[in-house]
Amino acid sequence: MSFQLLCTDSTSRARRGRLITGHGAVETPIFMPVGTQGTVKAMAPDELKTVGAQIILGNTYHLFLRPGLDIMRHFGGLHRFMSWDRPILTDSGGFQVFSLSKLRHITEEGVHFNSHIDGAPCFLSPEISMEIQSLLGSDITMAFDECLPYPCDWDYAANSLERTLRWAKRCHKWVVNLPHEQRPLVFGIVQGGTFQGLREKSARSSVKMNFDGYAIGGVSVGEPESEMMRAVDNSIPFLPEDRPRYAMGLGTPPQLVEMVARGVDMFDCVLPTRLARNGTAFTSWGTLNLKNNLYRFDNGPIEQGCICGACQTFTRGYIRHLIKAEEILGLRLISIHNLYFYLNLMQQIRDELEAGTFQRFREIFVANYARYEPSCTTKGNHQ
Amino acid sequence: MSFQLLCTDSTSRARRGRLITGHGAVETPIFMPVGTQGTVKAMAPDELKTVGAQIILGNTYHLFLRPGLDIMRHFGGLHRFMSWDRPILTDSGGFQVFSLSKLRHITEEGVHFNSHIDGAPCFLSPEISMEIQSLLGSDITMAFDECLPYPCDWDYAANSLERTLRWAKRCHKWVVNLPHEQRPLVFGIVQGGTFQGLREKSARSSVKMNFDGYAIGGVSVGEPESEMMRAVDNSIPFLPEDRPRYAMGLGTPPQLVEMVARGVDMFDCVLPTRLARNGTAFTSWGTLNLKNNLYRFDNGPIEQGCICGACQTFTRGYIRHLIKAEEILGLRLISIHNLYFYLNLMQQIRDELEAGTFQRFREIFVANYARYEPSCTTKGNHQ
Repeated sequence: MSFQLLCTDSTSRARRGRLITGHGAVETPIFMPVGTQGTVKAMAPDELKTVGAQIILGNTYHLFLRPGLDIMRHFGGLHRFMSWDRPILTDSGGFQVFSLSKLRHITEEGVHFNSHIDGAPCFLSPEISMEIQSLLGSDITMAFDECLPYPCDWDYAANSLERTLRWAKRCHKWVVNLPHEQRPLVFGIVQGGTFQGLREKSARSSVKMNFDGYAIGGVSVGEPESEMMRAVDNSIPFLPEDRPRYAMGLGTPPQLVEMVARGVDMFDCVLPTRLARNGTAFTSWGTLNLKNNLYRFDNGPIEQGCICGACQTFTRGYIRHLIKAEEILGLRLISIHNLYFYLNLMQQIRDELEAGTFQRFREIFVANYARYEPSCTTKGNHQ
Repeated sequence: MSFQLLCTDSTSRARRGRLITGHGAVETPIFMPVGTQGTVKAMAPDELKTVGAQIILGNTYHLFLRPGLDIMRHFGGLHRFMSWDRPILTDSGGFQVFSLSKLRHITEEGVHFNSHIDGAPCFLSPEISMEIQSLLGSDITMAFDECLPYPCDWDYAANSLERTLRWAKRCHKWVVNLPHEQRPLVFGIVQGGTFQGLREKSARSSVKMNFDGYAIGGVSVGEPESEMMRAVDNSIPFLPEDRPRYAMGLGTPPQLVEMVARGVDMFDCVLPTRLARNGTAFTSWGTLNLKNNLYRFDNGPIEQGCICGACQTFTRGYIRHLIKAEEILGLRLISIHNLYFYLNLMQQIRDELEAGTFQRFREIFVANYARYEPSCTTKGNHQ
């Protein structure tokens, strides 16, 4: 078994686990920084290790289009290409085909679409997606699915779901037919939009295929938070305890805590790095817009007590200046802080689960996170 | 004396020296990375130390406009603001007032101009420039000068030079009137455009004021390389042996070697970081455009044998991908390499001067640098 359940929370569905991959173990619950184009934006691999990244995400769609498969093959896969020796999970490209590309045409065989870079006609199918993920050297591959938009009517969702299930079977078959030593883990994806019955059907049917883990897809696609929570609540009960569960594309810090309580083990999200590039930092009591004039004389770190590389050395006032002056070091420092914040949050969650204190942590964290008031950490002598 | 002449080259005017500043010694000849807005673009302070930076440049004009003097005062100067504990040289703002700002009006008192950021009316004078540089905590301050454009007629150059000399006297006076323990080094600037007589007059008159060092200004302003060399050749003979000489805003690697041979000790230039952001890397045999398709399967480092952080870990093929995909890590890696290249070149020059082999090094380096041919370091299995 690739997944070990180390302990469970008595007051919620939360679990502490360990996922064994071809590049080592991943302690769950875990957050996976997103490395869309063969790099986690603005971060070097050694910095990712310093902030505590155990596993990162690679994007099949993006790497397929650029640099392209001949280059990825030449460099021996994504790990060697980007100099990252820890686990990598690759998505299937499904989400990107449906969110980024234009003029797509879905058939039973797969999806014809045009590259968002140069408009070139492309084709992805379940088999091609798995072949690409295998070529990338992915430790955890994802089944190729249709990611539904929000909102979406029942008829479309039901038909799409059936096709996604047929595609899932083809993905699973492709992977299990590989020689054992080349076989990555493969996760199925629960779809079904906002419909309880479809989520149940998707989960039950996926589980029958015996995937190594299960993702909940079609969340964080613009729906209200309550719908997101419902989609997860409607999926989790039908997933086996002995396999990891991954909520795709989530979320804010309190959403992650709430999702862990609902039984989710794995997360990925662009928020920490995307908001960093806009000057927004995460703290345990909310986000901070570091462009704010309030911080111009601020001698304090982004978050008092934080031991990330940015907070150990640099002030809010300096980082604010860098962001206002559009200097790269500014978004680098906030990216370091935000990723450390997310990864440290997951470390805290794991510690609380082991100590049996997760429920208390959950309540305090979610309550604190809402109490954000902008304030300056220092009273300066700024006249 | 703040400057020690350690040895001189028997075949040229090249010198090996040591400049003592308030934040430690600087071994010359030296290259100073440019930190225009309180950061060397894309680089963190610890990375600057790793590539071997002994001293960096700060820009008075930029920091005066943004973040502004109240903030710089609050943070206790530039060293603490940006977390850099080694020496800093600040320019006077003269060059930027004349190259970046609009609607400038020069009077005997100083220069009225409009901010290039928001158009706000501003004023800089010799005394204000020195006061700002002192407030920034600069270790080496520069006199406030008018930097002539190229080309420029004799009448304008001669009149401007007289005013620049009067301004230099005011700058020198402002600094020497400071209490001894607060007094930074102050360098005069030789102007005079392309006119031999004016360069001589500027140098001789500046030297009479007894500055701690002398810069050669008004070079690298668009003139042909031969004019640049002539301007330096027309200035150096009138400068004292026991003071450091600084050629402002230079240059390409062979230009630096040639300038050292002409007796220059200090350099600053945006080329290593600016070209990095455009995908261009320096090597000992010329520049490399890493966007080139030639490098897409290239498993080799930017330069074989280079021990910089980029070359130790990352391939040309990967860096090319990052630059094409407009990923920040790409320009970070080339910035690291380029700055290491410049700083290591100066280290080599110092070593050759100490070993008495500078002349041979100069000839080989300049000859090699010209022999650039694009080529791929590896023959890939890329069909």
